[in-house]
Amino acid sequence: MRTVYFDNAATTRVHPEVVEAMLPYLQEVYGNAHSVHSWGSRTGEAIEKARCKVADLIMGRPEEIIFTANATEASNLAIKGLAQAYRDKGRHIIVSSIEHTPVLNSARTLEQAGFEVTVIGVDEHACVKLPELADSIREDTILVSIQHANGEVGTIQDMAAISELLKGKDILFHTDAESSAGIIPSNVGELGVDAMSLAANTFHGPKGAGALWLRNGVDIVPLIEGGIAENGRRAGTEDVAAIVGMGKACELAKTEMPSRIDHSRHLRDRLIEGLSSRIDNIVLTGHPANRLPRTASFCAKSVEGEAVLAFLDAAGIAAGSGAACASDVLKNSSHVLGAMGLPAELARGALLFTIGIENDELDIDYVIDVLPPIIKNLRNGNSNARNDVL
Amino acid sequence: MRTVYFDNAATTRVHPEVVEAMLPYLQEVYGNAHSVHSWGSRTGEAIEKARCKVADLIMGRPEEIIFTANATEASNLAIKGLAQAYRDKGRHIIVSSIEHTPVLNSARTLEQAGFEVTVIGVDEHACVKLPELADSIREDTILVSIQHANGEVGTIQDMAAISELLKGKDILFHTDAESSAGIIPSNVGELGVDAMSLAANTFHGPKGAGALWLRNGVDIVPLIEGGIAENGRRAGTEDVAAIVGMGKACELAKTEMPSRIDHSRHLRDRLIEGLSSRIDNIVLTGHPANRLPRTASFCAKSVEGEAVLAFLDAAGIAAGSGAACASDVLKNSSHVLGAMGLPAELARGALLFTIGIENDELDIDYVIDVLPPIIKNLRNGNSNARNDVL
Repeated sequence: MRTVYFDNAATTRVHPEVVEAMLPYLQEVYGNAHSVHSWGSRTGEAIEKARCKVADLIMGRPEEIIFTANATEASNLAIKGLAQAYRDKGRHIIVSSIEHTPVLNSARTLEQAGFEVTVIGVDEHACVKLPELADSIREDTILVSIQHANGEVGTIQDMAAISELLKGKDILFHTDAESSAGIIPSNVGELGVDAMSLAANTFHGPKGAGALWLRNGVDIVPLIEGGIAENGRRAGTEDVAAIVGMGKACELAKTEMPSRIDHSRHLRDRLIEGLSSRIDNIVLTGHPANRLPRTASFCAKSVEGEAVLAFLDAAGIAAGSGAACASDVLKNSSHVLGAMGLPAELARGALLFTIGIENDELDIDYVIDVLPPIIKNLRNGNSNARNDVL
Repeated sequence: MRTVYFDNAATTRVHPEVVEAMLPYLQEVYGNAHSVHSWGSRTGEAIEKARCKVADLIMGRPEEIIFTANATEASNLAIKGLAQAYRDKGRHIIVSSIEHTPVLNSARTLEQAGFEVTVIGVDEHACVKLPELADSIREDTILVSIQHANGEVGTIQDMAAISELLKGKDILFHTDAESSAGIIPSNVGELGVDAMSLAANTFHGPKGAGALWLRNGVDIVPLIEGGIAENGRRAGTEDVAAIVGMGKACELAKTEMPSRIDHSRHLRDRLIEGLSSRIDNIVLTGHPANRLPRTASFCAKSVEGEAVLAFLDAAGIAAGSGAACASDVLKNSSHVLGAMGLPAELARGALLFTIGIENDELDIDYVIDVLPPIIKNLRNGNSNARNDVL
């Protein structure tokens, strides 16, 4: 049976060159970066080289990179750490309604600690409502956190317009770029942000490596404290293998970005066209044009997304229905689709295909063949749908 | 030139079987543990198997294991997360003066947030003063955090006596077992603790994997929130390769513990005897008997520890002078040695040799040959000491 992986939003296959780059740091180079001997300095140098590569991907400076375990940690550090560092200046924070849970939940925790949080709505394409954002800015606003792109529906925000709104206002602007950095150009200067969360595993780097980019001069209260790692901003023995892997993944992402974008956009459009024309009552979610090149997201009427996923899996296809990290609890009620105004009945049929660098046209055509009968059978209440497919 | 690694307190070489166990999870098994398809469930199953192995090492239950990036994160989570969870019960916390910086700094942060912290002293062997601990317990004490063993001087605390003191008092007992778990028996039931921090990289597992063991029924406020990973107690995509590596390292540590202890104790005693008899004015630090089997720690008079390390490094020997994560800042003024009452002049000459499973008698004899002339030359102010050695 053909197997096709289309769940790259959840995580990606580690690029073979990334694995190769990591291996020495799981084997012969095993010092602690802070030890005072050659074993340690070899590790330390590898981390600093990786730091340069991560900075280079987003056009930041190496010393502005704080390595973390993943984007979730980076966003927790950003939201809680910036709020704590600037609490004497003000206690008002703004986030969008379609933020990933690390940002949303961190903001809710801050609310319990005496901060005020305004949640900005989005339109039907998941674009943040700029007038609402403009109106919500107050004298005591210290932080705005709006994601660069949405992993569930692919919408890319108009970051230039957002940062223009914040210009000259002495408000920090953080973006969760887990779904965009390494996928589309995410130059911190052009986006106009002060802090950015990213993770290696979303662009063919390893799990276990993420980063918070924090503009020079911006203070932050660490979440994990102890020793001197990451200049005291994130203590703990650095996972040098994962960090080196992240550096390599950034280097590859930067070099190959134009061709990766072309490749995935072509396949994405083929998939969107194929499924839209062969399945009734299926809608593309997210912005029709300003969307991630690898993201094809739909809602199909009168089916449960997770049931579709099970039948796809039986046919060798890995797809998603929303954020993987929320699968078990949120079931088919994504807060993103809700914020976009999709009726729950439609939102329950969410399907997310995220194209990776390994996919080809045959993969796309396989899904276009396999999915329509699955949905048809599910709609017909045919419990033998699975057997019909196999 | 012979190369000898004796800095296993800082981090260890990853065991080849551990690397082998990790590789599939950097290559063909790359799903997100929470995705609803076979790629995801293979990852999820691997994490649960590893969880069982970690629990088995310390005789806890699998569901009591919260995977983290390292012991530093685990200790931050324990101290801050337990204090937050039980703040309505009381705001007094007790730690020892020789805790590792993650515990000490987390406690200091809690002080700024309105908690009161009592720091218990130690005697000249780094043993926690039990009468002082008994006297410090109050009605509003909610948490006591005392390390199982000290990484810098090797002293193992009398955990049974400490937990006996706390018995029936409704006070949580956390132990930082980074220097003991996987090295010596660290059965959570025998130690009488409610929470334990550990890290894989201290016992030949990978960097990037640690855990907080938290007794069933104990509440905790997460440090890193977002999705559903680790039952909502530590969000973020799990680093399955590192977790699987930690599981394998725990399995090996458990099976091989008796032979590893015999091996390292024999080498440690040979090193202590050899250096003590051939170097004047050198003292063993830590408890003479109740000490980690792999830890040989000294203070040599009239030398700078870091200068000795540089000469040892030039001779191919990796050693430490204290906690690696503090090297750059604390220089030769370890808070542990200070708490033990060692005069600063002696503490500056701290040397730490931590024996690993790869070391043999020839390694020991090499150090016994190399170190005495280094110290002699340094004491003589001979700037050519390095050349004399090589």
